[in-house]
Amino acid sequence: MKNQTKIIAEKGIQELFITREFNAPRELVFRAFNESELLLQWLGGCDMTMKIDHFDSRTGGSYRFIHCTATGQEFSFNGVIHDVTAPERIIRTFEFEGLPERGHVSLETATFEALPDNRTKLTIQSVFKSVSDRDGMVAAGVEHGVTDSHQRLDELFERLLK
Amino acid sequence: MKNQTKIIAEKGIQELFITREFNAPRELVFRAFNESELLLQWLGGCDMTMKIDHFDSRTGGSYRFIHCTATGQEFSFNGVIHDVTAPERIIRTFEFEGLPERGHVSLETATFEALPDNRTKLTIQSVFKSVSDRDGMVAAGVEHGVTDSHQRLDELFERLLK
Repeated sequence: MKNQTKIIAEKGIQELFITREFNAPRELVFRAFNESELLLQWLGGCDMTMKIDHFDSRTGGSYRFIHCTATGQEFSFNGVIHDVTAPERIIRTFEFEGLPERGHVSLETATFEALPDNRTKLTIQSVFKSVSDRDGMVAAGVEHGVTDSHQRLDELFERLLK
Repeated sequence: MKNQTKIIAEKGIQELFITREFNAPRELVFRAFNESELLLQWLGGCDMTMKIDHFDSRTGGSYRFIHCTATGQEFSFNGVIHDVTAPERIIRTFEFEGLPERGHVSLETATFEALPDNRTKLTIQSVFKSVSDRDGMVAAGVEHGVTDSHQRLDELFERLLK
């Protein structure tokens, strides 16, 4: 399969990489990460609904997203946005509010690379405060949620490019 | 020596720790990191003057600082502020603008811990995008600048507590 979500978490280091290719031009993939009305159509798993508390998508901005399960359980995330350089790069912090202790923040760098045939490669590096923070994120099932979200992104791009 | 700046950069990992104790209560040490008029009196080395481009010291805020040498050379830094929890914690991003390429951002967590006798322990963890980014920062002489700044902080606290 060509467009496959890969999560690489090498043992013993405090980072992970997510890579994915999409059948959509870089400008559109970048927009899907930065515009609220597009983000709401794909972020979070298929079994979740998403609310945006706030999303000021610019260098110096910030965000807070809430994902709700069908049974009403909520998972919230927030962060500040260090850099939005269209259409190539987003750097931001990320904190899951459901942890027993505050301060377990990670730093995410999303890179959007143009491929031939109007395709795009996305690479996200997440750097964590510790290896155990990274391992906790992997154990919490990040792979399922991310893979699911990327499939919804494929569907969004199909609709938009029709 | 009791109040000594220590920089711990364990080989092969993408983080470093700076620790330092101060003869000043936690509230005052925390203020020295958050109030422009205090920051200007200690941050940067003795041979540098400092300018604040902007400093919005709050959760969701941002900053940009410029350090000038006697010969007019400028070194600028900027970042966004993920968390300011008085008087115990500051989490922010950090980017040196003088690198040949943008995007080499690190994530800093400063923790302020109250010690007996109105003393305070500061711990700063910096997590980098790579081991080579971390090593580059160490090679650039971070130790000299930080040690120098902390000595100026000692002098500031002496003046304020007199």
